[in-house]
Amino acid sequence: MLTSLQNPLVKFFRRLHQSQERRSQQQFLLEGTHLIQEALASDYPLDIVCYTPAWEQAHLDLALALGQRAKRVEQVSEALLAAMATTQHPDGVVAVAPQIRRSPSPVIQTTGLVVETLQDPGNLGTIVRTAVAAGAEGLWLSADSVAPDHPKVLRASAGQWFRLPLAVVDNVGSLLTDWEQAGVQLVATSSHAEVDYWAVDFTRPTVIVLGNEGAGLSAALQRQATVQVRIPMAGAVESLNVGISAALLLYEARRQRWAAGGQ
Amino acid sequence: MLTSLQNPLVKFFRRLHQSQERRSQQQFLLEGTHLIQEALASDYPLDIVCYTPAWEQAHLDLALALGQRAKRVEQVSEALLAAMATTQHPDGVVAVAPQIRRSPSPVIQTTGLVVETLQDPGNLGTIVRTAVAAGAEGLWLSADSVAPDHPKVLRASAGQWFRLPLAVVDNVGSLLTDWEQAGVQLVATSSHAEVDYWAVDFTRPTVIVLGNEGAGLSAALQRQATVQVRIPMAGAVESLNVGISAALLLYEARRQRWAAGGQ
Repeated sequence: MLTSLQNPLVKFFRRLHQSQERRSQQQFLLEGTHLIQEALASDYPLDIVCYTPAWEQAHLDLALALGQRAKRVEQVSEALLAAMATTQHPDGVVAVAPQIRRSPSPVIQTTGLVVETLQDPGNLGTIVRTAVAAGAEGLWLSADSVAPDHPKVLRASAGQWFRLPLAVVDNVGSLLTDWEQAGVQLVATSSHAEVDYWAVDFTRPTVIVLGNEGAGLSAALQRQATVQVRIPMAGAVESLNVGISAALLLYEARRQRWAAGGQ
Repeated sequence: MLTSLQNPLVKFFRRLHQSQERRSQQQFLLEGTHLIQEALASDYPLDIVCYTPAWEQAHLDLALALGQRAKRVEQVSEALLAAMATTQHPDGVVAVAPQIRRSPSPVIQTTGLVVETLQDPGNLGTIVRTAVAAGAEGLWLSADSVAPDHPKVLRASAGQWFRLPLAVVDNVGSLLTDWEQAGVQLVATSSHAEVDYWAVDFTRPTVIVLGNEGAGLSAALQRQATVQVRIPMAGAVESLNVGISAALLLYEARRQRWAAGGQ
């Protein structure tokens, strides 16, 4: 069992707390039993797994599976594990995984989702979870957004992170142009729009384009939308949480596909 | 200008960081310009407002309005304000307001929302914001939930907190019984249900009943539901964030009322 806080492995895990290090190493952290179970269930590769003796005792089958699937497995002391994790109360297991992101296909058949300049990792994680549940084909995220491998994104995604094809995009505008030329409907929300979102025909190949929490969508992307919709709001409500907006549009699309006999 | 950290006002504000103190004082904290603007816009009374000289300079009109509307206004130093606030980077203004909750009417005409044992203040705030936007008549929260005047609830509600009639309920079961006897439809989500949520007739007077983040709805309340619905989910997704579930059902109700010619 590793017990020294000077162990290079501790330093390696701690470096991956930084987004820049994750980018340069092309690796990221997985924390907690649930996420690691989901990684195994999704056949996601694992480079290094560290757990405490108590965790191993409580998860013998999972520890066995990890022994077969991870490149390296180490038993570490509680103190070491606490130093490796970003959470205040880690549940006894942390891992490092390679960044092998599954890219979404640019050919849209049902519904895709684009989000611009999203800042809050909790919102991104919730969007990932909802997008998988709603059956979205993929998520395209502008490069100035929170990093998709931020530990809070993984946590808020409730393990669905491994199941959603996701791309980080430098030039969202040119992506939208390509889709428009291919006949894909581009639906953006706007508080000035006059069409309620449920009045759009979502049975056509559609990409939903959402802006960030505070400022909404940039004017440039707003202009590229082929349909502007509003989410009707009572009283003096100005906007909804971006995760809520994404869910309402993705599930309205799903409802319409179901009503049209699809899935 | 108050500058001493020994000032009783500082201690008073700090006591209200505790949920128990807020309950015994029947008062709570408002933090930040946006929330305080929303309180004024909703004609919500304010007991004490404290702001820094820099904040006053930047918000002269608002400071004037607060002078007319709050019982007591004090200029305080940056250090004092930081000690009074719960947030790490307060924007220069904090206030104390009395708890005068607007109770929802038990007579349901369109849609109401019940949430049981909700723990996360961010989720509750998001639900409040969405419920106002969707035009829900009120929110009933079981007494074992997070306190609705938790600072993070107010923050996540984006100021809509003042606009939603809300009651904390000791006995949710008896409330549901009353509604059932009055012919109100009680819709609960369940992963075992066979009816998709959009197949329910939400143009009838309806109360949506949701459980907490982890465990879902208790078996006792689940049995009282007159309709069990599922939110269909692709892949291996087991559940959605409770704020997302609330939004999907509330907005499906709103869409159906709109389609039926209501609002």
